Amino acid sequence: MAAWLLGIKTLKIQPYHLPTLGPQDVKVRIKALGICGSDVHHFKVKKLSTMRCANFIVKKPMVIGHECAGIIEEVGSEVKSLEVGDRVALEPGISCGHCSLCKAGSYNLCPEMRFFGSPPTNGSLAHKVVHPAKLCYKLPDNVSLEEGAMCEPLSVGVHACRRANVGPETNVMIMGSGPIGLVTLLAARAFGAPRIIITDVDVQRLSIARNLGADETAKVSTDIEDVDTDVGKIQNAMGSGIDVSFDCVGFDKTMSTALNATRPGGKVCLIGLAKTEMTVALTPAAAREVDVIGIFRYRSTWPLCIEFLRSGKIDVKPLITHRFGFTQKEIEDAFEISAQGGNAIKVMFNL
Amino acid sequence: MAAWLLGIKTLKIQPYHLPTLGPQDVKVRIKALGICGSDVHHFKVKKLSTMRCANFIVKKPMVIGHECAGIIEEVGSEVKSLEVGDRVALEPGISCGHCSLCKAGSYNLCPEMRFFGSPPTNGSLAHKVVHPAKLCYKLPDNVSLEEGAMCEPLSVGVHACRRANVGPETNVMIMGSGPIGLVTLLAARAFGAPRIIITDVDVQRLSIARNLGADETAKVSTDIEDVDTDVGKIQNAMGSGIDVSFDCVGFDKTMSTALNATRPGGKVCLIGLAKTEMTVALTPAAAREVDVIGIFRYRSTWPLCIEFLRSGKIDVKPLITHRFGFTQKEIEDAFEISAQGGNAIKVMFNL
Amino acid sequence: MAAWLLGIKTLKIQPYHLPTLGPQDVKVRIKALGICGSDVHHFKVKKLSTMRCANFIVKKPMVIGHECAGIIEEVGSEVKSLEVGDRVALEPGISCGHCSLCKAGSYNLCPEMRFFGSPPTNGSLAHKVVHPAKLCYKLPDNVSLEEGAMCEPLSVGVHACRRANVGPETNVMIMGSGPIGLVTLLAARAFGAPRIIITDVDVQRLSIARNLGADETAKVSTDIEDVDTDVGKIQNAMGSGIDVSFDCVGFDKTMSTALNATRPGGKVCLIGLAKTEMTVALTPAAAREVDVIGIFRYRSTWPLCIEFLRSGKIDVKPLITHRFGFTQKEIEDAFEISAQGGNAIKVMFNL
Amino acid sequence: MAAWLLGIKTLKIQPYHLPTLGPQDVKVRIKALGICGSDVHHFKVKKLSTMRCANFIVKKPMVIGHECAGIIEEVGSEVKSLEVGDRVALEPGISCGHCSLCKAGSYNLCPEMRFFGSPPTNGSLAHKVVHPAKLCYKLPDNVSLEEGAMCEPLSVGVHACRRANVGPETNVMIMGSGPIGLVTLLAARAFGAPRIIITDVDVQRLSIARNLGADETAKVSTDIEDVDTDVGKIQNAMGSGIDVSFDCVGFDKTMSTALNATRPGGKVCLIGLAKTEMTVALTPAAAREVDVIGIFRYRSTWPLCIEFLRSGKIDVKPLITHRFGFTQKEIEDAFEISAQGGNAIKVMFNL
Repeated sequence: MAAWLLGIKTLKIQPYHLPTLGPQDVKVRIKALGICGSDVHHFKVKKLSTMRCANFIVKKPMVIGHECAGIIEEVGSEVKSLEVGDRVALEPGISCGHCSLCKAGSYNLCPEMRFFGSPPTNGSLAHKVVHPAKLCYKLPDNVSLEEGAMCEPLSVGVHACRRANVGPETNVMIMGSGPIGLVTLLAARAFGAPRIIITDVDVQRLSIARNLGADETAKVSTDIEDVDTDVGKIQNAMGSGIDVSFDCVGFDKTMSTALNATRPGGKVCLIGLAKTEMTVALTPAAAREVDVIGIFRYRSTWPLCIEFLRSGKIDVKPLITHRFGFTQKEIEDAFEISAQGGNAIKVMFNL
Repeated sequence: MAAWLLGIKTLKIQPYHLPTLGPQDVKVRIKALGICGSDVHHFKVKKLSTMRCANFIVKKPMVIGHECAGIIEEVGSEVKSLEVGDRVALEPGISCGHCSLCKAGSYNLCPEMRFFGSPPTNGSLAHKVVHPAKLCYKLPDNVSLEEGAMCEPLSVGVHACRRANVGPETNVMIMGSGPIGLVTLLAARAFGAPRIIITDVDVQRLSIARNLGADETAKVSTDIEDVDTDVGKIQNAMGSGIDVSFDCVGFDKTMSTALNATRPGGKVCLIGLAKTEMTVALTPAAAREVDVIGIFRYRSTWPLCIEFLRSGKIDVKPLITHRFGFTQKEIEDAFEISAQGGNAIKVMFNL
Repeated sequence: MAAWLLGIKTLKIQPYHLPTLGPQDVKVRIKALGICGSDVHHFKVKKLSTMRCANFIVKKPMVIGHECAGIIEEVGSEVKSLEVGDRVALEPGISCGHCSLCKAGSYNLCPEMRFFGSPPTNGSLAHKVVHPAKLCYKLPDNVSLEEGAMCEPLSVGVHACRRANVGPETNVMIMGSGPIGLVTLLAARAFGAPRIIITDVDVQRLSIARNLGADETAKVSTDIEDVDTDVGKIQNAMGSGIDVSFDCVGFDKTMSTALNATRPGGKVCLIGLAKTEMTVALTPAAAREVDVIGIFRYRSTWPLCIEFLRSGKIDVKPLITHRFGFTQKEIEDAFEISAQGGNAIKVMFNL
Repeated sequence: MAAWLLGIKTLKIQPYHLPTLGPQDVKVRIKALGICGSDVHHFKVKKLSTMRCANFIVKKPMVIGHECAGIIEEVGSEVKSLEVGDRVALEPGISCGHCSLCKAGSYNLCPEMRFFGSPPTNGSLAHKVVHPAKLCYKLPDNVSLEEGAMCEPLSVGVHACRRANVGPETNVMIMGSGPIGLVTLLAARAFGAPRIIITDVDVQRLSIARNLGADETAKVSTDIEDVDTDVGKIQNAMGSGIDVSFDCVGFDKTMSTALNATRPGGKVCLIGLAKTEMTVALTPAAAREVDVIGIFRYRSTWPLCIEFLRSGKIDVKPLITHRFGFTQKEIEDAFEISAQGGNAIKVMFNL
């Protein structure tokens, strides 16, 4: 059984015929799966024909979901690294392995990527999935399956910190205290960032961020006229220059604030995808050599995420605010709660 | 005597009282000076009170000009590296040397920078200037004073190629075949770029670019609706992916074309400053991890530029299309010709 | 038929049963193959039981040879990138693709590497070989099969230049004017090195190096007492500091000279493997932060080598000094000539 | 008054005529100073004429000492960053600021460096010293003067971690649990190293290292024959590959162990300077692309060290095992205890 997205706000649990188990594949009994903003986005779209998230369009019924962990139920004939019963976190994207981007290690940019729940590839909100063994990472005993599922969103923050080269000399600003902002906060701290400020329009979110370890918080507005005011507020709070900003939202306002608040020679990482076209003062930023670094998903992050969880350097458990079972009713409730935002950060299914 | 910018299109040769020669300064008899687009910009502005180029505002009469070379006439008491009679190219900006950006070697971003002809600092279109010895670079016998003056614009291309890490595996696109586009072309070739395409709206400029060594050229439009068409034309001509694009113009159209034409994981360097605010599809570029690299002037480029000229790896002489003497009439003509664009690339004064 | 190494200086042309053609393999008719120093090393060893080159030991009869190019004769069922009749250069090493080194792109360090003619893997001095399609690179029309075979030694120089980050600001010293020294010279030039000095004990070799484009040459001795004298001679000839040295020999004398001649903060690349244990003044080099960079074969170099050959940036043809056919007599002669050194640089078979 | 090194094991407190206070200098009342191994080395040498540490020779009486902190007593006419009464840590080396190495930010390699207590420059074991203001870093309230003095040895570890690019994905080995090994341990932890093993011949030192946070320790021998055994022991203890090794000793044995124990593609940082010439198996390390990174002192490390101390990420207080006043008798005792090693780690003067 799996959760099929059939149309506008229409998710149904229906049978799912698994693909054949290849020699290097494993069959996994999914036990934990978190709802991502992109899942909610697919769920909420007006018409099936135009369902899209960034460039991705849902054209026909599709199993949703991609942040998951589970237990190995069967292994392909050539699989040596895993055994039945192993608890694993799943990396959701299968890249081609042959193109120049894959060869160079930038497999997240592979044009042939097949990614759980990204049209037309079925996702993993299902009792069972078949997946390549090499994308299933064994969890240590002290890391739960829910934490395993959290490796996926955490990977976004880890990849962003790697690309921005965050370390013990990097003062960081994070725009947006939603799930991605918060995992970026946790990742930046684990990479050694000495001071981190996080912003949001919602003071409750800021309070959560502070509890998770932000040194400073700043309530910002959504009004583009307030960019200068907000930049002043942020720079005051930080005292020192901001070396790297992460825009985890992606509006003109957040990006403008990030571009203006970052020190000359610093970097702005664009993670959030709220708007396609942006109107921002790119030239003054370029004239201060503030670079804009694009972030798309992640690559080679699972081992590091699992090590962070194992060693306790990162604790993702406080991010899981809601839990649901895998019934028709609960699925609908879970997506509604996730869509409303509010005090929901990560909504998790236990299957 | 020096060329003073007094108001709208009002340049007058008037006496210039040189500052005192400090112990580590030299007095230079300027012999060659090229007109830069920013000089023309200062020249053309509507009202003196609003004269600005990017963030720089001309508030009172100011000597103009900054691309120059000359002969040492006097050396300060502590200067050991230069002698009277030495032929030198002048790096125009004096940074503070103490701020964190200067200490880290990014002195081009120094907030205290005093730069020839950038308000309120006087420029070097003058018979003589006083300048720090360490910013005056001795020219080899086979490099002329005019070529020495060309080190300044060439430095922009060299700095951009360094920041973009151009090498023998970097296919390059250059947007704009004006002076900065053309020096970037020469620099990219000298850094080993195997294939370079350059674009412009003007076929005559493209023909010049091809003569200077561009492998491919593409005539593009100024209409934002044509982005996709232009990208297709560019990618067809190149055959392979574009690793690094240099936007030497800085309009929505050029930047959009650069963002869309560059391969996933590539870089777009923003050099041109035509527009402050830009409306561009930043998010799709970020989702392909195309980074936007800001370029502001240059740092530590003169020795490399001089070596390129000495060895013949770069020949800047074809860029010098017009020459004028240092009389009131000729100055006015020179700026008019430079302002018109057309077949003028670099307009040079011989003083 | 293939050239089997049976024992001390005993090479015999004998039948070679090709492995089965897998779905992603191609069968290649070998047309050109160059003799490498490591082949000669295998050929000359005293006893078969101790035949070794670095860590590699020949324990049983083995086909020799690995620098090769040929024509596709048959393609596996899943091969789409190549067709029968295509002219290709072969990259000789097959890595596992799964270990952490392969995943990180450093596949040349893969512990499971199977490499042509490196015991116990058979080489390619044979009429035909079976090889993975992805390791066969199509040659442009203007690149000959002999040049295709030269991509293998050239790759060593290219990989070294990449690891040392050679560019237009890197003054280079190369120790040793044998085949590897000479391909490193060609590669360093193609990467833009402005000034290159090359050394050898043999003035004839130096003269060849000068003809291939070295700016300076220095005759050095083999006597460890002469290190200071040789360093003085080298630094005098160069005038400026040496940023990167390549030791293409690997004796105490060459490495000591390289360590001492390189400027503070520079790099010494150790390519030659003449001696296992070395007695060198490492500490004074470390106290000048001269790093020692290890070079082992190459990774992802064929496309760049082919581009260098296609564009004419590198011409390897002058390195091919001797040619032989594939007969028992000629193989013996070819290896003797290659072993003697003298005026032989690259000895090539035309099969 | 200052501690003058007059000859073999002869340190005398004698008057010290301070140099004139320049406009950008400050006069500092030294309050805390730690003894470094190089001070002890100078102290112990057989004859004054041959006193040397690495390349540095003591030819005439010289004030010793360089790890220090104190209180500003007077400021030069142009000093704006500091005031009388400020508590500061002193960076001991004055570089020329003009050479290519200084310009590139690698000022620790400046050939004109004048460094406290490095012949012929007087050191800072004195009541007062005159020093450039820009090399005096203000201490936060919660960082003591003794901790300020510890910034100097800590800087060595910080510089080594920066050069080796230590981060949350770097498993680390440290050879030697002396003061430099221990500060490297603290620095590697602060840079995020997930697992660290440290070695020594002395189990008591290993116990100290474990208390300071080493994950694993290994008792090693001084016998070169034991390299393989020791490597096996180290790799067993770590389980996973060692990415970066720091040799804080500098003997054939320690370097051989580091070269062999480090994973292919890893790095060995040579910090210890025990031996000038080394006999080590460099070639097999090069054939696994294990690079040897030289470490000389540090550059631009004080702000980061102070931030580590302020935030509590690093606690250097446990390293201070002995304290002495500034009397003739105590100076002699302090150097004797420091020379004996044993349970003395850092011996500190309170002046």
